[in-house]
Amino acid sequence: MARVALMRVADAGDAVMGRLVAGFGAEGALDQVRRGKLDADFVAELAAMRGKPVDPGRRLTAWRGRLPFTDPVADLARGRKLGARLIVPGDVEWPTQLDDLGYERPLGLWLHGSADLRFACLRSVAIVGSRAATPYGMHVAAELAAALSEAGWTIVSGGAHGIDAAAHRGALAGVAETVGVLACGTDVAYPAGNHGLFEAMRARGLIVSECPPGVRPTRLRFLVRNRLIAALTRGTVVVEAAIRSGALNTACHAITLRRHLAAVPGPITSGNSIGCHRLIRRAEAVCVTTAREVIELMAAIGDDLSPEPRAPVLPRDRLDAESRSVLEAVPARSGAGPATIAVSAGVDLMTALSHLGALSAAGYVERTDLGWRLRRST
Amino acid sequence: MARVALMRVADAGDAVMGRLVAGFGAEGALDQVRRGKLDADFVAELAAMRGKPVDPGRRLTAWRGRLPFTDPVADLARGRKLGARLIVPGDVEWPTQLDDLGYERPLGLWLHGSADLRFACLRSVAIVGSRAATPYGMHVAAELAAALSEAGWTIVSGGAHGIDAAAHRGALAGVAETVGVLACGTDVAYPAGNHGLFEAMRARGLIVSECPPGVRPTRLRFLVRNRLIAALTRGTVVVEAAIRSGALNTACHAITLRRHLAAVPGPITSGNSIGCHRLIRRAEAVCVTTAREVIELMAAIGDDLSPEPRAPVLPRDRLDAESRSVLEAVPARSGAGPATIAVSAGVDLMTALSHLGALSAAGYVERTDLGWRLRRST
Repeated sequence: MARVALMRVADAGDAVMGRLVAGFGAEGALDQVRRGKLDADFVAELAAMRGKPVDPGRRLTAWRGRLPFTDPVADLARGRKLGARLIVPGDVEWPTQLDDLGYERPLGLWLHGSADLRFACLRSVAIVGSRAATPYGMHVAAELAAALSEAGWTIVSGGAHGIDAAAHRGALAGVAETVGVLACGTDVAYPAGNHGLFEAMRARGLIVSECPPGVRPTRLRFLVRNRLIAALTRGTVVVEAAIRSGALNTACHAITLRRHLAAVPGPITSGNSIGCHRLIRRAEAVCVTTAREVIELMAAIGDDLSPEPRAPVLPRDRLDAESRSVLEAVPARSGAGPATIAVSAGVDLMTALSHLGALSAAGYVERTDLGWRLRRST
Repeated sequence: MARVALMRVADAGDAVMGRLVAGFGAEGALDQVRRGKLDADFVAELAAMRGKPVDPGRRLTAWRGRLPFTDPVADLARGRKLGARLIVPGDVEWPTQLDDLGYERPLGLWLHGSADLRFACLRSVAIVGSRAATPYGMHVAAELAAALSEAGWTIVSGGAHGIDAAAHRGALAGVAETVGVLACGTDVAYPAGNHGLFEAMRARGLIVSECPPGVRPTRLRFLVRNRLIAALTRGTVVVEAAIRSGALNTACHAITLRRHLAAVPGPITSGNSIGCHRLIRRAEAVCVTTAREVIELMAAIGDDLSPEPRAPVLPRDRLDAESRSVLEAVPARSGAGPATIAVSAGVDLMTALSHLGALSAAGYVERTDLGWRLRRST
């Protein structure tokens, strides 16, 4: 109950609150907020921290200001009525990989859907990218997601139009779960245009959020949400990202969290691939072009090695070097005598004749009144 | 004169002939071929070589077989009549970077055109790719070549349809020279469809070949020719390459010769980009997307650094974190009172009011009868 209250009191991803809860438990933290007085050692600890200084007094004021609007009993009742459930660290369904977020670990998660979050995310990949995606990006996201889902990998993404929606749609065409992590309450279902998609995801996967029911999305909540997408999964694939794209923020989280990071190349003439190419150029992301390459990267080492693309073997490749030079010396039209061919190929006459016989038997060359020439079909 | 003769006697890139010439000079080598007897120490040296064994007797037979068809005086006369000139190692115009080819260095080069080969190739880039290129590949090759040429870089490529032709056409739109290295005599101008292009290249650059006049192209000659494209330049850019493409052979030569290697990404749905993506994935090639990135790679270290693509700075970015949270808390429609906004933003009322005032002055928010709301235009 204290955690549910704190999910209203503190912003999502508030590391100061995370630190307070880690030190005093959720009830202890809530108690300090209610009393309007933070533990002195805790304040000293904050002051000793490197980096951007935190003003504990202002933070406390902000938290206290929200207390009057905090009603955990009502939140739980509202969530349940909507069909959602709340999980907190320690629950069986809690994905322990979120512990990598340290003090930014969410206080709790609202889940709405049929899948088990912890189980679904054991083998999961994030597919992220631009909202204003190109048809190429949408196609690639859907194809990758479908192939990964077919191979048993859960897809995790946001709930936006563009790459997010294409990835979920692709995943639904496969067999695995698909998980949408929203920057608003699970009941808000933003954007409204994806309402039907969210319905399908609840039936075959999950809608996840650290925001209490009814909370609207904001720019900051989107950025904070991205850390969850990166943390839940073994790695993130950026399908399309303009130079200013939230997907690159998720990519940053993946790097910080030491998750795998992959990017899909695209036409260099497309602004929506600039972010992907930059990640590849900086060697921050691995260049991936197929679902198998994604799996090879994300899977445990040696588990799933992707087959290298191979050139087809042509019949011509099976010829030895000498036969090949004789074949090269045979003209396509008119015809040439064996002596001319031998000189051109750099072999003696008997060698040329023996190779010509073999090449003729194999259908490469033919003898005409004018001499040897290539057979049309070769 | 002896070199001109040997260019008929031996195949292009014949390392055994290269070794013989290195040991005995061109005249000494030609003399041994004429006498039909190779130096005993030389034969012993060949026998002691690691790798694929060479049969000196057979090689000698092949060379001798071509002696009757060898007429250096006629070759020189024919070349001159066509307007071409011959250069050999030691000439002022000889590009000494070809020495990196070791015994596979060409015996001589036929040049046809107005440019100086050595000077043109001081700052040069090879642009190579598929003959059966896509419109995307042709566009990229032409744009890259034009921008590189505009920046004073000579373009080197083959003479094929597709990427080669697009690169030369792009280069002709710039200001620098363009050099076509052919796998046939400079007068053969294969393929015939590029005849007009070759004319333009002779006027603004060079047609280059190690084949004597009149020699027709063969598959082997194309592969051998590729080493010249790689060796002449500071590096090679692969624009499009299917999994089985001659461009990948040039890329191999670039790696072996420790030249730079770059590849242009493309749609993963295009078979013509598979070779490029494989080079990038294996970290054999650097992923490049602009001419500046190519120049950064190929130029002397620190000479030309490419600007990183940067996101545009939006006015919103200039706001401090506190202003931003207040702005985020202002609703887009209806309106909210300053107290509500303060709670949502996590600041006290006075702070909220002061930021709202500043945001209003900057045109982000406006005050209505219903409270504060975002201004439409933001």
